[in-house]
Amino acid sequence: MKTTPVRGTNDYLPREAALRDRMQETILKTYRSAGFLRVQTPAMEDLENLSKSDGGDNLNLMFKILKRGDKLDRALETLPPADASAAREDALCDMGLRYDLTLPLCRVYAGNREKLPNPFKVIQIDKAYRAERPQKGRLREFVQCDIDILGSDSPLCEVELIDTTTRALLNLGMEDFSVRINDRRLLRAYLTAAGFAPDTLDSVCISFDKLDKIGPDGVKEELSEKGFPAEAIGNLVSTLVNPPASPQELAERFPDPETASAMAPALESLTTILDTVGVLSEGKYAIRFYLSLVCGQGYYTGTVFEVESNRFRGAIAGGGRYDNLVGKFIGAKVPAVGFSIGFERIFSILLESGADFTDRPRAAVLYRDEDFIPAMQWARELRETRDVSLFRMPKKLGSFLSRLTEQGYSSFAVFGRDEELRPMQ
Amino acid sequence: MKTTPVRGTNDYLPREAALRDRMQETILKTYRSAGFLRVQTPAMEDLENLSKSDGGDNLNLMFKILKRGDKLDRALETLPPADASAAREDALCDMGLRYDLTLPLCRVYAGNREKLPNPFKVIQIDKAYRAERPQKGRLREFVQCDIDILGSDSPLCEVELIDTTTRALLNLGMEDFSVRINDRRLLRAYLTAAGFAPDTLDSVCISFDKLDKIGPDGVKEELSEKGFPAEAIGNLVSTLVNPPASPQELAERFPDPETASAMAPALESLTTILDTVGVLSEGKYAIRFYLSLVCGQGYYTGTVFEVESNRFRGAIAGGGRYDNLVGKFIGAKVPAVGFSIGFERIFSILLESGADFTDRPRAAVLYRDEDFIPAMQWARELRETRDVSLFRMPKKLGSFLSRLTEQGYSSFAVFGRDEELRPMQ
Repeated sequence: MKTTPVRGTNDYLPREAALRDRMQETILKTYRSAGFLRVQTPAMEDLENLSKSDGGDNLNLMFKILKRGDKLDRALETLPPADASAAREDALCDMGLRYDLTLPLCRVYAGNREKLPNPFKVIQIDKAYRAERPQKGRLREFVQCDIDILGSDSPLCEVELIDTTTRALLNLGMEDFSVRINDRRLLRAYLTAAGFAPDTLDSVCISFDKLDKIGPDGVKEELSEKGFPAEAIGNLVSTLVNPPASPQELAERFPDPETASAMAPALESLTTILDTVGVLSEGKYAIRFYLSLVCGQGYYTGTVFEVESNRFRGAIAGGGRYDNLVGKFIGAKVPAVGFSIGFERIFSILLESGADFTDRPRAAVLYRDEDFIPAMQWARELRETRDVSLFRMPKKLGSFLSRLTEQGYSSFAVFGRDEELRPMQ
Repeated sequence: MKTTPVRGTNDYLPREAALRDRMQETILKTYRSAGFLRVQTPAMEDLENLSKSDGGDNLNLMFKILKRGDKLDRALETLPPADASAAREDALCDMGLRYDLTLPLCRVYAGNREKLPNPFKVIQIDKAYRAERPQKGRLREFVQCDIDILGSDSPLCEVELIDTTTRALLNLGMEDFSVRINDRRLLRAYLTAAGFAPDTLDSVCISFDKLDKIGPDGVKEELSEKGFPAEAIGNLVSTLVNPPASPQELAERFPDPETASAMAPALESLTTILDTVGVLSEGKYAIRFYLSLVCGQGYYTGTVFEVESNRFRGAIAGGGRYDNLVGKFIGAKVPAVGFSIGFERIFSILLESGADFTDRPRAAVLYRDEDFIPAMQWARELRETRDVSLFRMPKKLGSFLSRLTEQGYSSFAVFGRDEELRPMQ
C-alpha cells in the first residue's frame, strides 16, 4: 500500500499542523471580533450548480464524484459517445468538490436569507479542491479563509473587509504589505475609451492581467498577436508605462462626457474606499490605486483588491465585488463583496521563517508501570499550565528525549526521581 | 439553481457553526493538554489503499472521484462489461473520500515513523464521508474527533485514551455516562468454548452485536436461522440472560485449560484497564465489563470500548485496538489503539439542549455614513472585550434588532446618540 498522500496534496505532521491550527484560530478570532459570523457548508456541491457558477477556468479543474448504485448503472447503460467527453463526465457524476467557498456561500444565503441579518457579514474557513497540474507545485486541497458582506452595495463594506483582513494579517505576524485596489467598471470604461471594442474586453483583460509577469512589452506583443487595433494597444501601453496614481488622475486623461459618465460610479466608490482606509490604516500599510489589477475570478463585477507582501513575491490576500452571483439562485440581484486570505501562501512563508506557533509549553512525564496512577495524577496538576504527555520509561533515554525535542517538547521529568520538570538539553 | 445542500449533508448557520467551533476547540484543547499531537491528512485517498483497508461495510459506502483527462478517456475506452459493476467503478475512479480517519493515520504513520515519537500519541479532528442512505437520517459528511496511540501494546494506552476522552466529554458538558469495555480475544475464546466453530465467529458476532436492539430472544432466533448448533446457541443465550460482571467471572465459568489459556492475555489486560480507570475516574463515571460489546469496525483485534450516555440513547464515543492495520503499509506489526468521540451525536444533543456556546458577548454599533470613521474607531476599542459588528443605521430599527437578537447579539448602540452599549430588548 502507498504511504504518500495523493498527488498534489499534503500530510501535515505535528509541527505543521500546530502552525495551521494557530493560524486558523488567529484568523477566526480576528474575523469574529469584527462581528462576522461563521457558516459551514459541505465539501461537495451539486454538479449542475457548480457548472453554472461563472467559475471560469476553475470549472475545468473540478473533482467530480461518481454516481452510485442504480443511478450509476443507468448512466453507464446510456453513456454519450466517446467524443462527447464533457457530456460523459456529467452523465457519470452527480456532485463535485467545491473549487472555492463563494458558490456555497451564495447558495446557503439564497436558501436562508429570511433568517439572516441584512447585510450578512459572514466568515468561511474551510477546504476547497482543484485538480491543478501537480508539477506546478499547486495544491489540489487547500484552505480558504474568507469574509464576505452580502446585501449591501455600500463601498464601506469594502473598507470593513480591508480593515478586518489586514488586521488578521498583522495578527499573523505578516507585516510590510500594501493593498492594491481597482474597479472592473473603471477598467472597462478606460479600455473602451482607449479604443477596444466592449465585447472584446475580457480577452484584453486576460493579457492585461499578466503585466506583473511579462511586463508592458509582453502585454503589447500578446495583444498584437490577438489582432487588436494598434492604436488601442498604443494607448494602453502608454498608460502602463505612465500609470495614473489615482482614479481621478485616470479620469482627467479622458474628459469626454461619455467616458466620464461611465467612470463616475467607480470613481466615487474608489475615492471613498481609498480615503477611508487611508485614515483607518494608521500608517500600518499603504493602499494604492492600481489600474492593472484584474483579479482572475469570472464573477467579479466591481471593486477588486489584493494584498501584496513587500517582502515575499505574490499576493497574500485577494477579493472583490460580485453583485450577480447570489441572483443566480433567487432571480433578484443581491450585492455582495468578499475578501480571501491566501492561507496556504502564508503558511509556507511562516513555516520557512521558523515562526514558533506553540500555544502552551509541552512537557513529558516518564513513568514505570507500577507508578502509572500517581504519575497520571501528577500530570493532571501540571496540565493546568502546560500540555503534558505521559510515556513509559524508555530503554534509551537520550535518543528518546531528542526526538521529543524535535517535536517541540521543552521539558521532562522521570516520575519518582525528579520532583519537578527539567528543561530538555 | 438549487439552494439546498446535497442529500445527506448539512449547512450550518451561525449559531450552529459557533457551537461546532466551540466543541472542536474544547476537544482539541483537552487532547493537546494530555500531550497528544495533531496531524492532518487530505480528504481524498488513493482508491486502492481504501479498498484494501479492512473497512467492512464502509467500503460499500465510499464516494469515488472520477479520473480526469487522458486517464478518464482511456478508462472509458476499455470499460469492463456492464455486469462487472465494481470493476467498472474501479476503472473509472482513482481516488475516494476517506470513510474514517484511521486508514489515513496508518498511512501517514507508516510514511513518517522515523521522524515521530514512539509511541506516537496523535490527534485527528476532521471530516469523513460515507454514502449512507439519507432516509436513515445519517450524515454523508461528518466530523470525527480521534485520539490514537501507535507503537505500544501496553493496556495503559487504553487507560490514557479513556481518561482523555472522558475528560473531553466532561469539558463538553456531557455528564452521566458510563464506559463499557470488552476484548475481542476474550469474546472469541468464549464463543469457541460455548460451541461455535472458530471460522464462524464473525457471523456469530454480527448477530450478537444486535443484542441492544433485538434482545436475547432476537439473537437466539437469528442464530438459529443461520443454522448454528442449538447447544452453542443455548450456552450463549444463558450467558446473555446472566451476564458475567467481570472478566474473571466469565473465566471462572470455563475452567478447562485450553479456554483458560486462550482467555489469559485479554483477562490480564482488561483487569489492568478496569482497575486503573476505576481509580482515575474519581467517581465521575463508571467503567464496566460488557461481554456483548462487539464494535463494528472490521479492523479491531483486541480491546473494544465505548461511552454510553445514561440520558441519551446510543454511544457517544467508541474505539478499540487495531494491531494489524499499520502493518499493511510497512509489513511489520505495529500495535495501535484509538478512541473516537461521536461529534455529530453530541452536537445534536447540545444543540437541542439550547446550550449557549458563545465565546464572547456580541454587540452591534449602528452608524450614519458620515460617522463611519469614528464609529470604526470606537468599535476597535469595544473589541477588546466583545465581538462588535458595524451596521449602517437601518430604516426599521425594531425588526433589524430583533433579527440580530436571534443571531446571539446581546447589546447595541447608535453611534453619536448612545455613549455606551445598551442591552437588546
